[in-house]
Amino acid sequence: MELPVLTPGQFDLVYNALSFGIAAMGAGFIFFALARSYVAPAYRPALLVSALVVAIAAYHYVRIFESWGSAYVLEGGAYVPSGEAFNDAYRYIDWLLTVPLLLVEAVAVLALARAKSASLIARLSIAAVLMIVLGYPGEITDDNTARFIWGALSSIPFVYILWVLWGELGRALDRQPPQVRVLVRNLRLLLLGTWGVYPIAYMAPFFGLTGAGAVVAIQLGYTIADVLAKPGFGLLIYAIAREKTRADNADPLQGQAVPAAAGD
Amino acid sequence: MELPVLTPGQFDLVYNALSFGIAAMGAGFIFFALARSYVAPAYRPALLVSALVVAIAAYHYVRIFESWGSAYVLEGGAYVPSGEAFNDAYRYIDWLLTVPLLLVEAVAVLALARAKSASLIARLSIAAVLMIVLGYPGEITDDNTARFIWGALSSIPFVYILWVLWGELGRALDRQPPQVRVLVRNLRLLLLGTWGVYPIAYMAPFFGLTGAGAVVAIQLGYTIADVLAKPGFGLLIYAIAREKTRADNADPLQGQAVPAAAGD
Repeated sequence: MELPVLTPGQFDLVYNALSFGIAAMGAGFIFFALARSYVAPAYRPALLVSALVVAIAAYHYVRIFESWGSAYVLEGGAYVPSGEAFNDAYRYIDWLLTVPLLLVEAVAVLALARAKSASLIARLSIAAVLMIVLGYPGEITDDNTARFIWGALSSIPFVYILWVLWGELGRALDRQPPQVRVLVRNLRLLLLGTWGVYPIAYMAPFFGLTGAGAVVAIQLGYTIADVLAKPGFGLLIYAIAREKTRADNADPLQGQAVPAAAGD
Repeated sequence: MELPVLTPGQFDLVYNALSFGIAAMGAGFIFFALARSYVAPAYRPALLVSALVVAIAAYHYVRIFESWGSAYVLEGGAYVPSGEAFNDAYRYIDWLLTVPLLLVEAVAVLALARAKSASLIARLSIAAVLMIVLGYPGEITDDNTARFIWGALSSIPFVYILWVLWGELGRALDRQPPQVRVLVRNLRLLLLGTWGVYPIAYMAPFFGLTGAGAVVAIQLGYTIADVLAKPGFGLLIYAIAREKTRADNADPLQGQAVPAAAGD
C-alpha cells in the first residue's frame, strides 16, 4: 500500500503499539519457557509450542517496528514517507510460521488419539498456508477490488479452520473435568474473537477508512489481535494445563501425584 | 557473481526469504534446546547437535540478510548494486560447520556401535569438507565453464556422502521398531530431497537462468533447502527420538519407565 502522510499522533500510536507488541511477545516467551515445569510432563510440549510462537512473533515485531521507523521521516511537523518501503511481508511470514504452531497448540488441548491429531494438524496447516498466501496479494495492492477478491478467497480456508476447531473444541468439552470445561469454552470464544479481528483489519479500507486512518487501523488491529491470539491464547492453554495437572493429581485412581515441578 | 539490477519484487522476495530463514533457524534453536527433556537421555545429545546446527545457521542468516540489504540501493524504483559485495562466503562457512554436525545427527539415528560410528563420521566429514571447498570457487566465478568444473568436482564427495548415508539408513531400517521405521524412511527421503536442491540451485545459471532470475533462484533455493535440511531434518530426528522413547518405555523387558522429563 502507498503510505499516506501521518500526523505525529497517528505515527506515534502505531509506533507505540508495535513496541507494546515486542514487549508482550518477549514477556510471553519468558513466561512459557520457564512455566513449563509448573504443569505435568504431558502438557509441557504444548507450553513449549506457545513459547516458540511468541518468540517468532517477538522477532517479527522488532523487524516491523524498525521498518515502520525507517519508512517515515518527520518534516515540518508531519510524518512523510521516507521512500523506504514499510515491509508488510513480515506479518505474513510470521503467520506462515506461527499459525500452524497455534493450530498444534489448539489440537494438543483436544487430547485426541495421536493418529487423529496428526491428520487434523495436517489438514488445518494446509488450510492456514492457503489462507495466508491468498491474503498477501490483496494486502499489498492499492486496488480495492483486488483486495476484496484476494480477501474473499483467503476467507474460505479461514472459515474452514474456525469451523473445524469450533466443532472439535465443542466435542472436547464433554471429555473435560468440570473446572477445565469453562476454560475450554473461553478458549473457543477467544479463538473466534481474536481471529475475527484479522479480516476486519484487512477490510479496513472498505469501511470508509482511507489513507492515514486505514493504515493506522490496520496496524493497530493486527497488533491487538496478535497479542490476544498468541500470548493470550497461550495463557489460556497454560491455565487449562494447570487445571488438568491438578485434576490428575487429585484423581485417586491415578495413584501417585505427578511431580509437576521436577525440572523442565 | 556480478550482481544484476533487481525489481523491488525480486529484491523483496530474497530479503523476506532470508528473514524467514532467520526466524526458522532461531525458532528451531529454542525448540531443540528446550525439547531435549522430552526424550530419553540416550537421544538428548542428538537434539543438542540439532540445536547447534540451527544456532550456527541463524547467525549466518543474520549476516547474509545484512549483506543482502547493504549490497543494493533503491534508485529510481529499481534496486541497483551499491558497490558493496554480497558475501556468498557466509553460506559456505555455515556449511563447513553445519554439514559435519548434520552428519553426526544422521549417524546418531543409526545407533551403530561406537567404533563404527566414529569411523563413519570421520569419513563423511572429510568428504563434506572436500565438497564445500571444491564448490566455493565455482560459486563466486562469473565464468560458467569454471562453475561447471568446480561443481562437477564437488559432486564427487557429495554423491559419496549421499550413497553411504542412503545405504546405512536402509540397513538401519530393519533394526527399528515398526513406528520408527516409517520415520527413518521419511528421513532418508528428506535427506535425498533436500540435498538434491543444492546442486540444482548451484547449477541455476545453466538452466537458461541468467542475471536477476539466477540470483533470485539461487538465494531462494538455498534458503528453502537450508530450512528443510536443518530445522526440518532436526524435527524428524526429534520425532524418531520421541517414538524410541515411547517404545523403550512401553517395552516390558526394559523394565522401568524412562523419566523422560526429569530435567535436561
